[in-house]
Amino acid sequence: MENNAFIYLDKIEKSQDIKKLSIDELKALCEEIRSAIIGTVAENGGHLASNLGVVELTVAMHYVFDMPEDSLVFDVGHQCYTHKLLTGRKERISTIRRKDGLSGFPRRDESEYDAFGAGHSSTSISAAYGIAKAKALKGDLSHTIALIGDGSFTGGLAFEGINNAGRFKKNFIVVLNDNKMSISKNVGAFARYLTGIRISPWYINAKSGLERFLNKVPLVGKPLVNLLTKLKNNFKKKAIKSNNLFENFGFFYYGPVDGHDLEELINTFRAAKKVTKPVLIHAVTVKGKGYGFAEKDPKNYHGIGKFDVDSGEPLSHSTSYSDIFGKCLCHLANQKNSICAITAAMTMGTGLTEFSHKFKDRFFDVGIAEEHAVTFGAGLASQGMIPVFAVYSTFLQRAYDQLIHDVSLQKLHFVLGIDRAGIVGEDGETHQGVFDVSMLNSIPNTTCYSPCYFDELASCMEQGIIRDKNLVAIRYPRGVEPYRPDDFDELDINFSLYGNKNASRLIVTYGRLFADALIAKRELSKIGIEVCILKLCRIKPIDPEAVKAASGFKKVHFFEEGMLAGGIGETFGYLLEEAGFIGKYGITAINDSFVPHASVKESMTKLKLNSLGIYDIMRR
Amino acid sequence: MENNAFIYLDKIEKSQDIKKLSIDELKALCEEIRSAIIGTVAENGGHLASNLGVVELTVAMHYVFDMPEDSLVFDVGHQCYTHKLLTGRKERISTIRRKDGLSGFPRRDESEYDAFGAGHSSTSISAAYGIAKAKALKGDLSHTIALIGDGSFTGGLAFEGINNAGRFKKNFIVVLNDNKMSISKNVGAFARYLTGIRISPWYINAKSGLERFLNKVPLVGKPLVNLLTKLKNNFKKKAIKSNNLFENFGFFYYGPVDGHDLEELINTFRAAKKVTKPVLIHAVTVKGKGYGFAEKDPKNYHGIGKFDVDSGEPLSHSTSYSDIFGKCLCHLANQKNSICAITAAMTMGTGLTEFSHKFKDRFFDVGIAEEHAVTFGAGLASQGMIPVFAVYSTFLQRAYDQLIHDVSLQKLHFVLGIDRAGIVGEDGETHQGVFDVSMLNSIPNTTCYSPCYFDELASCMEQGIIRDKNLVAIRYPRGVEPYRPDDFDELDINFSLYGNKNASRLIVTYGRLFADALIAKRELSKIGIEVCILKLCRIKPIDPEAVKAASGFKKVHFFEEGMLAGGIGETFGYLLEEAGFIGKYGITAINDSFVPHASVKESMTKLKLNSLGIYDIMRR
Repeated sequence: MENNAFIYLDKIEKSQDIKKLSIDELKALCEEIRSAIIGTVAENGGHLASNLGVVELTVAMHYVFDMPEDSLVFDVGHQCYTHKLLTGRKERISTIRRKDGLSGFPRRDESEYDAFGAGHSSTSISAAYGIAKAKALKGDLSHTIALIGDGSFTGGLAFEGINNAGRFKKNFIVVLNDNKMSISKNVGAFARYLTGIRISPWYINAKSGLERFLNKVPLVGKPLVNLLTKLKNNFKKKAIKSNNLFENFGFFYYGPVDGHDLEELINTFRAAKKVTKPVLIHAVTVKGKGYGFAEKDPKNYHGIGKFDVDSGEPLSHSTSYSDIFGKCLCHLANQKNSICAITAAMTMGTGLTEFSHKFKDRFFDVGIAEEHAVTFGAGLASQGMIPVFAVYSTFLQRAYDQLIHDVSLQKLHFVLGIDRAGIVGEDGETHQGVFDVSMLNSIPNTTCYSPCYFDELASCMEQGIIRDKNLVAIRYPRGVEPYRPDDFDELDINFSLYGNKNASRLIVTYGRLFADALIAKRELSKIGIEVCILKLCRIKPIDPEAVKAASGFKKVHFFEEGMLAGGIGETFGYLLEEAGFIGKYGITAINDSFVPHASVKESMTKLKLNSLGIYDIMRR
Repeated sequence: MENNAFIYLDKIEKSQDIKKLSIDELKALCEEIRSAIIGTVAENGGHLASNLGVVELTVAMHYVFDMPEDSLVFDVGHQCYTHKLLTGRKERISTIRRKDGLSGFPRRDESEYDAFGAGHSSTSISAAYGIAKAKALKGDLSHTIALIGDGSFTGGLAFEGINNAGRFKKNFIVVLNDNKMSISKNVGAFARYLTGIRISPWYINAKSGLERFLNKVPLVGKPLVNLLTKLKNNFKKKAIKSNNLFENFGFFYYGPVDGHDLEELINTFRAAKKVTKPVLIHAVTVKGKGYGFAEKDPKNYHGIGKFDVDSGEPLSHSTSYSDIFGKCLCHLANQKNSICAITAAMTMGTGLTEFSHKFKDRFFDVGIAEEHAVTFGAGLASQGMIPVFAVYSTFLQRAYDQLIHDVSLQKLHFVLGIDRAGIVGEDGETHQGVFDVSMLNSIPNTTCYSPCYFDELASCMEQGIIRDKNLVAIRYPRGVEPYRPDDFDELDINFSLYGNKNASRLIVTYGRLFADALIAKRELSKIGIEVCILKLCRIKPIDPEAVKAASGFKKVHFFEEGMLAGGIGETFGYLLEEAGFIGKYGITAINDSFVPHASVKESMTKLKLNSLGIYDIMRR
C-alpha cells in the first residue's frame, strides 16, 4: 500500500489536525481512510469489516472531542484502525500485526491516544467508567467515551458496566455501534430488541423528520438540551417501540442515528457533550461499509488473512484443526443425538458452520457469553445431553469459575473444544492461547488432551465425547497440521515413546511441538546424538506409566507451548521426583511473560519452541 | 433444636405431601419452617436472613409444581433450607454444614430434588435454561424454575442468561426474589429500577385492586391468560414506571407480588404455568422475615456463626484478618488519597465497613460483579488511582480473564485483598479458597503475598499498595490469627528461615500453615528430630535466595493450603531442580479433589495440613 497517495490523510499528524477540515473534506478523508484500511488488511490480514464500519464514527469523535484529554476506550478493539491512522501512526500502519510493528488492537504503551487496551469483548464500559470516576475524583472535566458493538453487548460484563455506570453524573458517553451482528449472527433477546428499535416508526420518521432537525442544532446550550429532551420524550411516546432499556439503566438514550452520516454524528456528539447524565448513543452502521465483498459477507471478512483486493479472494486456505473438529463433531452427532454444540459467537471460527445447519436444534450460539455457554451447557448435561463447547483458548479464560463451579464440582460430562490453543500469531498478546493448560491443570475431575495430528484430534474427540466422563478438554492449535513423516502412523491418545528407548536424553512434549521434536531428533542423530521422545496426548491426568518410562533417562527436557508456571512441565517434574528420578530435568516454556504479536513462526523461534530451539537445548 | 415438635412439618416426607394441606395449614407450616430454620442456624451457623425470606415462596412452588419432575434451580443457594426441609432431609437438617452432614447449598448428589448445584452467584438462569432446553429436546413437558435474588441479578452471567432465554417458548419461569438488597446494600441502576417498580402506583394499586383480583382467578385457561395479559398491559400504560425491562428481553413479566402472601403466590405460579413464553415473576420479600433481629439488620444475619436465639447475639467474635485488612486500608487511605476500595457486594465480609463511611468517594460497591470490579479498577488505575479490590478467593475466580487482560497485560497497579484464602470450613466445596494461588501463579507481572500473622498482613499491604507496581495480590485466610509464640517477632515479607540451618530436613510453607509448622518443629525436636522452616511470605515471584537456602537440605517438604497442581510447591520444586538440588523433595497439598464442608480444623486434619500432619510427614 502506498501511504503517501492521500490528500487529506497525509495532513493528519495528530487528532487535533482533523478539526481544521470542512465537512466535505472530512467526507473525503473518510474515503481515503477506507482505502488505506482495505489496502492494509489485504497485505497484512486483520479485521476488515469491523474497521470499515466505524470510519465516520471515529472521524466524528476525533472531530468533536479533544483527544487524548478526552479518553476513547475501544471494546474488543478490532475497529481501531481509523483511530490509529488519525493519531500519529499512519506512517507505521503497514507494519500492523507484524513483528515489532503496530498492534492490531489498542495498546496503552503504543500511544497516549489509546486510553485502554483491548482484545477481549465487553470490557469498554467498565474500563471507561473507571477512567471517568478517576477523572471525577481528580476534578478533571474531560470526557470519557466507550465505543462498543452490539455483539459485545451480549457479554455480561457489558451489563455489569451499564448497571454500575447508570448512576454517574456526567462526561460519560457510551457509543453503541450497532452493526446488527457480532462476529457471526447476533443472538438473543437484546439483538431482537435493537431490531425492534431500528424498524420502529420512531427511527424511520426520525431519519427525515424531527430528530434530524434537532440533531442539526449546531451548538446546544443547556436549556436547549432540556428542550430537546422533552421533545424527544414526547415524540417517543408515539413510537411503537420505546427505547427505555437503556433509560431503565439510568442512561440518556439518543438514537438511532445513521453511523455513516458525518453531520448527524457530529451534531449528536456535540449535543451529548452537554448532557449531565451518562449518555448512550445508538449508531447504526454497516459492517464492511464501502467494500462490496465485505458488506455482502461481513462474517467472512471479520478477521481474515491476506486477500486480493479486486476479487476479494483470500490468498490461501488450507484445512485447519477447526475444520477437522467441525467435521468430526458432525460425524459423532449423527451417531448420537444427545450431542449438542455450543459457540460464543464463533460459529465459523470454530468450524461449526456445517453443524449449525445440519443439527439446528442441537446448536447454540449464545453470543459473546462464555460464562453462560458453560453454565448453560452444564444445565444441558445435567439432563443427559452431551454439550461440546467450541471456544478459543483465550476466551475460555472468561469461564474459569463456571468450569470449576458448574461443571467439575458437579461431575457433569461437558466437553471443551479448545481452539487456537498455543501461539496464535498476529493477533498478539491478548489472543495467545497460552493459559488454558495452567487453568485446567488445577481443576479436579478433568481430563485434558492435546493432540498433534488431525487423526489424533478425531480420536480424542471420540474418546472425550463418547467414552469419557466429567469435564473433558481437547485443545488444538490455530492453523494447519504440522510436519508428519510419511511413515508415521502410530498414535496413542494417552502417550507414546518414539526413538531409542536406551538413549540417555528424553524430550517430553505435547501438541504440535511433537512435530518439531521429530525434526530435532532427526537432526540430532545426524551429529551422533540419540534422543527419545515421550509424546503426551493426554496431559491430564498424566499416566503413571508415562512418568515411569521417563524416569529411566539421564536427561529429561520438557517443551511446552504455554505458561511455565502451573503447566504440565512442572507437574510432570514433580511426578518424576516422586517416582525417584535421579537424572537432570529441564523445562522450556513461556516464562512469566506475554508473547507479543508476530507470526507464529517468529514467536516460536524466539521462545525456542521450534525444531531449532529443541535441537539447541537437547544437544547440550 | 427439636425437629419432632412440629405438627405439619413432621408430616412432610417428600414434596408431594405438601399438596394435601389447606391454605391455613400451609401458613402454619411456614411458621414451623421459620422456627426450624432459626433453631438450626443458631446451632450450626449459616445463612439466616436469606432463608427466612423465601419460606412462602418455596412452599408455594412445591405446592403448585410437581417436584422433582419440575426442576427448581437455586441461585447462590443460601436460600434452600425450606426446600431441604420439604424434600426428605428434615431429619438431617441439624447436620447441615457439618462434616458428613447436609450441605448448606443445593447439591445434585444430595437429593434428586436439587436440580443443580450452587454456591456462587448468578448461575441459575443459565443452568435452568440449559435444563429446559434439554427437556424440550427430549419432549419432556415439565417445568423448570430459576429462583434468583435481586443481588444475583447484578452479576453479568444473569444477564447473559436472560438474554439467551428470552426467546424460549415455554415451561420456563424465573422467580426474582426481590429483597431489596443482595448481601449488603444493593447497588447500581438495576436496583434503582426495581425500586421504581415497587413504589409505582402500578404496584401500590395492584396490591388491593385489579391485579389481586386477576391473581385470584383459580385455574387460568389459555384464553383467560390472554385476557389477563391484555388487561395487565392496558393497566400498565397508566402506571408511571413501566416494567418492560424484562419484557424487552422477551419475558412475560408478572408482578410485583407479595412474596409472603401464600395465596397470591400460589395463584401467580398457577397462572405462570400456562403462559407460552418465558415468565419472570417479581416477588417482593423481606430478608430475615419473621425474626425481628434479622429483619432489622439483614446484613449482619446474612451468613453468620452460631448465635443466641433470644438475644440475637453471636456466640463469639474475635478479630479477623478481614478486620485487620479494613483497618490497615483506612490507615493507608488517610495518607494517600489515590487509594480506592472496591468490593463486590461484600462490604462487611471483607472488613470495609469503616472505609465505606470514612472515604465515601473512594469506595465502590459494584454489586455481585467481580468481572466489572477488576476492569473498572483497571480503568481507575490507568488514571493513577490505586484500586484495592477486597474479594473472597472463591469469587475472584470469576475475574480470571480480567486480571490477565485488563490488569496484568496493561501493567496497571491493582491490588487484590484476597480474603477467605484457603480452607473456609462449613460453606464447603463451592466456597473453598484453594484455587487462587494456581490461578495467579501463571499470570505474568504479578506479585503475590501470603502472610501468616496480622502485623505481617499490614506490612504486605503497605508494600503492595504503596511501593509495588503492577498486579499485587495479598491473600489471607478466614478467621483469626493462628498460634504465635510469645517471643516471636521476626517477620520478613519476602522469606525467612527458622530453626537450625544445619538440620537435614526443611519444611517449606506459607500463610497460616507456618504456625502449624512451628508446632510440629517443636514436637519433632522433642523426639530428637531437628527441622528447619523456610517461611515464604512472597510466594510470587519466589526469591532465588530462598531457593538457594533450601537447596542445601537433604529432605525438603512443601506444605500448601491449596491445589497441588499449578501451586507454589510444584514451582518451587522446579526451581530447586534448576538450582542443582540433589536431595529428596515432597509436597503435601490438595491433590486434584474438592474439599467438602466440615470445620476448618476437621478439613485441615484430613488433608494432613496441620501440626500433626506436618509432624507425621517430617518424622519419616
